[in-house]
Amino acid sequence: MSSSPSTTATVLVTGGSGYVGSHCVLSLLEHNYRVIVIDNLVNSVQLDNCPLPESLKRVEEITGKRLVKFYNTNIENAETMEKIFQEHSPIDVVMHFAALKAVAESISKPLLYYQNNVIGSIALLAMMDKFNVKKFIFSSSATVYGVPEYLPLDEKHPIGRSCANPYGRSKFMVEQILEDLCRSQPELSVISLRYFNPVGAHESGRIGEDPSDIPNNLMPYITQVATKRRPYLQVYGNDYETEDGTPIRDYIHITDLTTGHIAALREILNDSSSWNGYHPINLGTGVGSTVLQVIAAFEKVSGVHIPYKVVGRRAGDLCTLYADAQLAQIRLGWKATHTLEEMCSSAWNWQSNNPNGYRQYST
Amino acid sequence: MSSSPSTTATVLVTGGSGYVGSHCVLSLLEHNYRVIVIDNLVNSVQLDNCPLPESLKRVEEITGKRLVKFYNTNIENAETMEKIFQEHSPIDVVMHFAALKAVAESISKPLLYYQNNVIGSIALLAMMDKFNVKKFIFSSSATVYGVPEYLPLDEKHPIGRSCANPYGRSKFMVEQILEDLCRSQPELSVISLRYFNPVGAHESGRIGEDPSDIPNNLMPYITQVATKRRPYLQVYGNDYETEDGTPIRDYIHITDLTTGHIAALREILNDSSSWNGYHPINLGTGVGSTVLQVIAAFEKVSGVHIPYKVVGRRAGDLCTLYADAQLAQIRLGWKATHTLEEMCSSAWNWQSNNPNGYRQYST
Repeated sequence: MSSSPSTTATVLVTGGSGYVGSHCVLSLLEHNYRVIVIDNLVNSVQLDNCPLPESLKRVEEITGKRLVKFYNTNIENAETMEKIFQEHSPIDVVMHFAALKAVAESISKPLLYYQNNVIGSIALLAMMDKFNVKKFIFSSSATVYGVPEYLPLDEKHPIGRSCANPYGRSKFMVEQILEDLCRSQPELSVISLRYFNPVGAHESGRIGEDPSDIPNNLMPYITQVATKRRPYLQVYGNDYETEDGTPIRDYIHITDLTTGHIAALREILNDSSSWNGYHPINLGTGVGSTVLQVIAAFEKVSGVHIPYKVVGRRAGDLCTLYADAQLAQIRLGWKATHTLEEMCSSAWNWQSNNPNGYRQYST
Repeated sequence: MSSSPSTTATVLVTGGSGYVGSHCVLSLLEHNYRVIVIDNLVNSVQLDNCPLPESLKRVEEITGKRLVKFYNTNIENAETMEKIFQEHSPIDVVMHFAALKAVAESISKPLLYYQNNVIGSIALLAMMDKFNVKKFIFSSSATVYGVPEYLPLDEKHPIGRSCANPYGRSKFMVEQILEDLCRSQPELSVISLRYFNPVGAHESGRIGEDPSDIPNNLMPYITQVATKRRPYLQVYGNDYETEDGTPIRDYIHITDLTTGHIAALREILNDSSSWNGYHPINLGTGVGSTVLQVIAAFEKVSGVHIPYKVVGRRAGDLCTLYADAQLAQIRLGWKATHTLEEMCSSAWNWQSNNPNGYRQYST
């Protein structure tokens, strides 16, 4: 029964049935980690008679491996969370994906976002503290940078000064809390992975991004138009100061995002104290693409025409964001390797094989 | 039974048994508001067989008026809070004083501060939303300004960029949440009163600042030295860039702070929509005093010598802070009128009459 300590580590994953979470859980299982998943399923599909949400059911099928356990609960639920931590103690690392993430909704329902994202994180950290869990990987977002003061955005760029929406501010607040917490407890190791724009799907085409309503993000909107689930794509403004007038984002393949998490996990499990403290790290490619470039790339790889209409700008949207991805390379030995075409083709592979996502019928 | 609508308004006060809260409750009762108080008493004294904390018992005695009701509960306790809101509906205004406030403790226990101050506020706002309460007065702090980029500090000064401690950041976060909330619900009226350094006590000398441990703030430390409860005052650093090397703060008499709250309440109860939205307003005098100047003023009015020792700087302390207090004058018709000597003499009147504060015996 010998195996390297790192591969038998126990990882508690919150929000593990969501888009990013489920892809990371898949990779964690492939790497033989012991994985416990908590998710309240507000953005997930669970089919009749199945104990798991559909995404994680498929993750188990794809990998041929099993989760240690899945819990359908809110992370703010102290009583349940205490039982979970108790049951699975010692937990080596917590990976915290659980959050609401729709920018527009966050503007209309800020309290909901602060409740879920900030209260949820504080409650989780308090539980970690109680059970002496010292390692934490947080799903942060490039949104914390707000309006860029310079580009590319590196980790030294000020955060929180001009976050355009409550979603971004909720991520910023959690980062601040984590930083203060690390200052007060130097033995903690925390990595905040600041995602740029994750897109695409696992190569199996069996798991992917599956928004429950009209997509807030570009790629699932495109793929739903491609499958004729939506009649056309709405492009939110073409009067930005970019080459074609549409906003520039740093899209990153979900598979690259996942390997970034595995790299961070491997590092943080390292016994060396070099990861003590608070470490924000960008996960991006360093390359930006406009909305129209993404559409063109998608049309090229899928052969499907994507009709679109330009509508007004969306509140809270910024013009141009892309990462300086050097720190991840230096500290995690990681860099993104997938192209925009690969992102599009994997997204299309997922959507065309699952026109209604995880649902059996269209919504 | 005719009285003006404003004086029969129902005001829910959180943290009403604390230093600032109790003085404001006193003034609310004097102005004939219907006052419901919620406090978890973590920083209060409740003597045997008394249903009220000692501060509020005395407030009732001083005013000859009664609270509508006092509740000993945490504001995060949704079940209890719902009953309170239900019982007293409609509540016209919530005044939110409840918070932890010790800067040094916030650095060593950040999670505790975020739990109390941020989670507590979000929970309270969610309950207000549920019961359709539209008016909110928040106890904020000059600490939100962080390291001043210019002086005096006006309300347009950036906030949150360099808050020196989790206490300040927790106030900043609540301000951000309030601002987002007002943007999403334009019918809300929110005033954040940014306190500078409240000191002194009610003229009766029967209520005042009563820290449960070694004081974090200057004035109660001085008065406890004056009563010989502490052997000497610790002055945290005399190498700041000020005229005598000790930090400069804008001390404000608690009575002035209280009239500022009453002015804000009167305004926000006004039916005019001019208070819709989010309104941060400084409560300060506009004048700064060094630590040594406060000591000298205290010695002058009390005739008591205050021995002190200069010790190292305290983590998180800033050099110089004082308010631009014009906005309060313009919008609330309010300005501070009490001198530093009056602050000192009222603090001394309280402490000398209550050498152990609200306790019957010294701690």
